[in-house]
Amino acid sequence: MPRIAVDAMGADGAPRVEVEGVIAAVRSEQTFVILVGDEARLRHELKELGALGEANIEVRHAPEVITMDDAPSIAVKQKKKSSMRMCFDLVKAGEADAAISAGNSGAMMACGLFVLGRLPGVERPAIVTSLPTQSGECALLDMGANVDPKPATLAQWAVLGSVYARMLHGKARPRVGLLSNGSEEHKGTVLTRETHRLLARATTATALDASTASTSEGRDRCDFEYVGCVEGRDVFRGDVDVVVTDGFTGNVVLKSVEGAAEVIMAMVREEIGRAGPLARLGAALMMKPLRHLKRRTDYAEYGGAPLLGVDGVALICHGGSNARAIKNAVRVAGQFAQSHLGDESTAAVARHAFLWETVAAVPAAQASSKAGATS
Amino acid sequence: MPRIAVDAMGADGAPRVEVEGVIAAVRSEQTFVILVGDEARLRHELKELGALGEANIEVRHAPEVITMDDAPSIAVKQKKKSSMRMCFDLVKAGEADAAISAGNSGAMMACGLFVLGRLPGVERPAIVTSLPTQSGECALLDMGANVDPKPATLAQWAVLGSVYARMLHGKARPRVGLLSNGSEEHKGTVLTRETHRLLARATTATALDASTASTSEGRDRCDFEYVGCVEGRDVFRGDVDVVVTDGFTGNVVLKSVEGAAEVIMAMVREEIGRAGPLARLGAALMMKPLRHLKRRTDYAEYGGAPLLGVDGVALICHGGSNARAIKNAVRVAGQFAQSHLGDESTAAVARHAFLWETVAAVPAAQASSKAGATS
Repeated sequence: MPRIAVDAMGADGAPRVEVEGVIAAVRSEQTFVILVGDEARLRHELKELGALGEANIEVRHAPEVITMDDAPSIAVKQKKKSSMRMCFDLVKAGEADAAISAGNSGAMMACGLFVLGRLPGVERPAIVTSLPTQSGECALLDMGANVDPKPATLAQWAVLGSVYARMLHGKARPRVGLLSNGSEEHKGTVLTRETHRLLARATTATALDASTASTSEGRDRCDFEYVGCVEGRDVFRGDVDVVVTDGFTGNVVLKSVEGAAEVIMAMVREEIGRAGPLARLGAALMMKPLRHLKRRTDYAEYGGAPLLGVDGVALICHGGSNARAIKNAVRVAGQFAQSHLGDESTAAVARHAFLWETVAAVPAAQASSKAGATS
Repeated sequence: MPRIAVDAMGADGAPRVEVEGVIAAVRSEQTFVILVGDEARLRHELKELGALGEANIEVRHAPEVITMDDAPSIAVKQKKKSSMRMCFDLVKAGEADAAISAGNSGAMMACGLFVLGRLPGVERPAIVTSLPTQSGECALLDMGANVDPKPATLAQWAVLGSVYARMLHGKARPRVGLLSNGSEEHKGTVLTRETHRLLARATTATALDASTASTSEGRDRCDFEYVGCVEGRDVFRGDVDVVVTDGFTGNVVLKSVEGAAEVIMAMVREEIGRAGPLARLGAALMMKPLRHLKRRTDYAEYGGAPLLGVDGVALICHGGSNARAIKNAVRVAGQFAQSHLGDESTAAVARHAFLWETVAAVPAAQASSKAGATS
């Protein structure tokens, strides 16, 4: 049975939504939760919700709270007895298998880095989320952890994202795109153009570097298919399984799509108000797919967004999470804890290091060998 | 009667869509169009559409075409007899009041810069588009002309965008936001944090610079209200009239929203396929607001996106424009040509130069005077 550490003080509606969500989780799943926060308040909530003696919930007192105003790295180092930091300490100590928080996402990232540490070979962790496409799902990363990453970091995220898409979305050989303002090579920023140059080593067709002349090996050594630069609309078209971008752009895209979905919902509601009774009946039915999209673009609603590249399982939930979102996050965290995402990620990063290592550093013998086996 | 130069060779469906759109335009509006492109093909299209002798259409032969693969600045300098370049030359020579093209938008930008030139004080022009909000419209810029702008350039766009919102959307004192990954000050990129520092001079509340101690004057001297950093979803909420961002982010946001709208449409269609006849009737009604949003997010559909900050009127249409889009663009170009957007923009840029000029360069006397009057 997985043991999940839940920061009870993170959400806008904390600690009520966390307590309510955790009760629902332990009553529907085989899972054990360590609820971390102000003990008196947590016991009060548990009592109010009739779950004070719940067998699979343990309350752990945390005297401090990291707020949205706290600068992430300082908060993590100074607020050692905060509920969020303590959740990560529990994972580090082996007392819990995963940490969940709906608090300050920058502080979550800092906790991941300072407490759990990075997986071997990973420069910066990333937050990944899944967006609905016309034919399934697309994993988009980074969602806001790193606003100014380096090209090599983006190339690593292509690898981390493809492991995630393979293990969680069941894509055997994920198609990976790099988000840009056009598919043409002269488009993009300095960052995207340089990242494209690295990722192009993964393919024959778009290889740009003369030193990767034996590019057919690039494809053989790669567990994913690099499809090149993609545009915003390609995220939703179903032709790509993973889209890589910096955390600034990823965050802005996610929130813009949320905003657009809200406008559509409002416009539809307006039309319904004007419609006759028959049409209104039909219109009510039409709200379902719209709600579905809204839920899917709101990453916390379906279980939180994992932090990829850290040595442990951590899920970041939306600040506006409700009890259902927390319940789902506990369930998903349990699945993650029982998978081998970390080990798979470490192996994949080692295997694909030829993408971001300087070309000169790749010995000819290694470059020509089939390095497809896990290292 | 405005005279509009239309590049007939730019759209994916060129020259048919341009010819068809222009015929519709001159038959419904008081406008004169110079259709620029391959003369033989244009005459053939006009004949096929029964408009060979149309009084308000003049055909001008252009032997060259700028393609999507042409590098913008080279194309503009080398293809002097291209249909796009010739449209701008007509505006420059005073033979036309506005230029329209659905071709290579980078080349449009280059034509704007090299042929028309920048308005006094403007560092880089920007492409602006309008997005639907819950209560009206939001002007978003830049949509892709400049991927790596400087902070001072973004601050200028706040001014250009606010003039546009005032003149075209009727907002008396536009509320301007800077797109970021959070409203908190420690969020954002190096670019957004530095731009925020400049724009904060426009307000009392969020002034960050000690040297603008007399910040109440900042507000008095400003024609717009700087509301600070906004998130992606704020673009659609109706609380802000202008949102400023770099061209990379703007382009990605616009296309992501287009893509999300497409997914919603597809999901709704799927539900309709499953629904009974009554619900299907209602569902059909629901397509209207969705189509509306799709049309509004597709900037070319409602008349093209103007290039702000150049000395003349130029509208960029979507490559996938249909005849209706071209017709609308001709109408909107006529409105722009008859407004004084250029003069207003020049005056506003001069009046707001205290935002991006180095603080030391602002004499105390000037800083304390009410500089609200047009300079």
